[in-house]
Amino acid sequence: MATQRLNIENIRPEVRDAQYAVRGELATRAEEYRERLEKGDKSLPFDKVIFANIGNPQQLDQKPITFFRQVLSLLEYPALLEKEDVLKSAFGYKQDVLDRARTLLKGVQSIGAYSHSQGAPLIRDSVAKFIEERDGFPTDPKNLYLTGGASSGVSTLLDVICADATSGVLVPIPQYPLYTATLSLLNAHCVPYYLEESKAWGTDVHAIRHSVLEAKRHHIDVRAIVVINPGNPTGASLSPDDIKDVINLALEENLVIIADEVYQTNIFMGEFTSFKKRLSQLQQEFPGKYDGVELASLHSVSKGMVGECGHRGGYFELVNFDPEVEAQIYKLQSIQLCPSVIGQCLVELMVNPPKEGEPSYELYSQEYNGIKDGLKQRAFALYEAFHKRMAGVECQKPEGAMYLFPTITLPPKAIWAADRADKRPDEFYCLALLDATGICVVPGSGFGQKEGTLHFRTTFLAPGTDWVDRIIKFHEEFMEKYK
Amino acid sequence: MATQRLNIENIRPEVRDAQYAVRGELATRAEEYRERLEKGDKSLPFDKVIFANIGNPQQLDQKPITFFRQVLSLLEYPALLEKEDVLKSAFGYKQDVLDRARTLLKGVQSIGAYSHSQGAPLIRDSVAKFIEERDGFPTDPKNLYLTGGASSGVSTLLDVICADATSGVLVPIPQYPLYTATLSLLNAHCVPYYLEESKAWGTDVHAIRHSVLEAKRHHIDVRAIVVINPGNPTGASLSPDDIKDVINLALEENLVIIADEVYQTNIFMGEFTSFKKRLSQLQQEFPGKYDGVELASLHSVSKGMVGECGHRGGYFELVNFDPEVEAQIYKLQSIQLCPSVIGQCLVELMVNPPKEGEPSYELYSQEYNGIKDGLKQRAFALYEAFHKRMAGVECQKPEGAMYLFPTITLPPKAIWAADRADKRPDEFYCLALLDATGICVVPGSGFGQKEGTLHFRTTFLAPGTDWVDRIIKFHEEFMEKYK
Repeated sequence: MATQRLNIENIRPEVRDAQYAVRGELATRAEEYRERLEKGDKSLPFDKVIFANIGNPQQLDQKPITFFRQVLSLLEYPALLEKEDVLKSAFGYKQDVLDRARTLLKGVQSIGAYSHSQGAPLIRDSVAKFIEERDGFPTDPKNLYLTGGASSGVSTLLDVICADATSGVLVPIPQYPLYTATLSLLNAHCVPYYLEESKAWGTDVHAIRHSVLEAKRHHIDVRAIVVINPGNPTGASLSPDDIKDVINLALEENLVIIADEVYQTNIFMGEFTSFKKRLSQLQQEFPGKYDGVELASLHSVSKGMVGECGHRGGYFELVNFDPEVEAQIYKLQSIQLCPSVIGQCLVELMVNPPKEGEPSYELYSQEYNGIKDGLKQRAFALYEAFHKRMAGVECQKPEGAMYLFPTITLPPKAIWAADRADKRPDEFYCLALLDATGICVVPGSGFGQKEGTLHFRTTFLAPGTDWVDRIIKFHEEFMEKYK
Repeated sequence: MATQRLNIENIRPEVRDAQYAVRGELATRAEEYRERLEKGDKSLPFDKVIFANIGNPQQLDQKPITFFRQVLSLLEYPALLEKEDVLKSAFGYKQDVLDRARTLLKGVQSIGAYSHSQGAPLIRDSVAKFIEERDGFPTDPKNLYLTGGASSGVSTLLDVICADATSGVLVPIPQYPLYTATLSLLNAHCVPYYLEESKAWGTDVHAIRHSVLEAKRHHIDVRAIVVINPGNPTGASLSPDDIKDVINLALEENLVIIADEVYQTNIFMGEFTSFKKRLSQLQQEFPGKYDGVELASLHSVSKGMVGECGHRGGYFELVNFDPEVEAQIYKLQSIQLCPSVIGQCLVELMVNPPKEGEPSYELYSQEYNGIKDGLKQRAFALYEAFHKRMAGVECQKPEGAMYLFPTITLPPKAIWAADRADKRPDEFYCLALLDATGICVVPGSGFGQKEGTLHFRTTFLAPGTDWVDRIIKFHEEFMEKYK
């Protein structure tokens, strides 16, 4: 018998100890402000809350891509397909929208039915084709697992990989806190490796080796390495050489590579190279040598120009995994039955959008490029603001993803004030920013940062640039107050 | 460094050891048969696979409810709302469909945006109202958590409740294997309590007490009790007195009650009583006495007459939980960001369907009752077949849920044959049934059964009754072969 009711002391300690800042105190307070404003509260010094704390494009008025949503509307109510002419004339649905909806319905039968736990076969075929075309190497749909966003894929993979309390996983710092939180839940070690801020937040393989050695000294069995490329929160994009270095390290150390590639289309400089492509190239170049390198790469409908976070769609691909281990991953996925089927269909649409010459192509590419250009413009506008117009703030040039992660240098008085308020300095700064402007960002401590440095992460999703001016004004006043 | 690549020996043992039969070998073979038939294979002795192994109504041609899907189509493509008249005249959308879509869009902004991790406030308000009207007691939306189907809710709850390897949870046997699988993953004890087949699979509180004592003898800290009502796989429905017994036991033993009530509308005899209602009645009747009884009750869009498994929508309500523990549950849910927003909207539609007098009511109630009547008819047709027309088979009268769980008595020769084939006898029987008829059911061993008894679980979702005749014919031949 349980000796007492559930309380904070007797629940699973791994749950209690897990940290997840993205939706922590700041987010909660921002939501309270939003509700107050909605109810007509005029006492706040701003009239709108800007959620720059989370990569949630459609909350910030990014419009969904028409082709995707037209198809999904037909999947929800297939009876619409009975009057093609009306759909076309009254609502502008094109023939390829109707065709795609029919194909998907044939593949999943009804989006209200459970699919295969790994994802509907037809959809995995499309994803395989997409990866083949992106990378120029074959992909077997049997190695693909559709998921409810990338987060649930990460959780599944780490659950299998982390055997026990001696297991460790290399995680970049700063990182997206899903990784540390999930490792906490599994009672496994996060083995941090620091990204080089001075080298545009690049991945330094020497730093990783150092972390591996440190972990070994502590008898940690390092089993995998997480790479987020393009980076969250850093916005860095890895070169083919950087990727090769990580693959070589994984080969030497028998590490599973977990490549979080959800920002693969959010690239502003250069070109995205996938881990799958680089690994396949190396396998081709050095036959046999790399066949033991295990790679799991993840993608999602939440980011990129799709921005469909609420639909919870994603997938991961397994490369060079032992089939017996794959069977365990399948079993684990099957316990949760299947990911949302409409989310799966959206994955299909993302990887197989209208092609040139098809009826929906023009509008699709116009919308897609419009979003991409807007993101790039705002990324650089924000970068310029941080870089040039704010004293004590430095920022790396944005290469990819949806975030900037500037360093802030705060005066001692501000640090003392934070201490008196029982807050970390970066948290104190971000709370003050929220209170003054309604702009919600996340303190660097939520992602990890080198001892003695302070940062915050902001998305550049919010439309317009007047909010950037509000940050600048707040920063001036804050620095003045605590100088 | 990891000494070797991932293999079945060095992955997380809890994952390896978890059992989940609903999608095991039988399901895989059935899927293979389906694919062969689809490709035109004529070598099988049947022309269709019937998936009676899983409660997946729309796979078996149950039609979605029109009102639900019309609203969802508008949420996917809100531009449709710009031409109300066309929607009405060409596609039969009624005014309440349009109104509801607008209300939901206002509440979630875009279904492509992440919502609050606990679920969109507007939707939780509707769920609270539904529970209040169902039970006659107040519900606070703050205690509601929207989930991706009930499965992910169960996983979240058990993750918090099972503190460590000494923790145990009472689980009915037979049970839905999600519970044992999740407990395995958490390295917690499943403390089985046997349901009484001879008493229509009722919950016998003496049997539970016995299980608690046994567990204590083994130094297991029993922390919660799972009750599935109506029962899966048994189809039993609990009386208010049975529920009171469980609540009293939970009070004495400080157990959290996890009430899996996903089949609450699948009731063929009597009336559904929720744990929340019964607990609230007791709290009213004996002020103070029951205030410490913690209850988590779960519901889903997958079952009932909704049958929208693929949409992955559900919720749970927490009653009498410590606010600090609730905060931990919220944090855990927030690590996965939020459940599918369209799935959340479907929860709203399920709990707030068209009311009498509203434009969509007539069609809604016609569809709803049609599904309900069909299920009832097939349940009893199947029951009659098992009960009267199959030697060596006994079956309890169906009271609720979507399943029958007949006992089978197999001749010794069949048991030997199973042994030679390295299969459990019930598994051997079910594989033979699948090979001969294309009908896929689940062996009782997948749910747990009393030592020496054999069962299988079948849904009664498949349309028509000719498949029932095929089971009867197979059974005769099987019994003849091994007599």
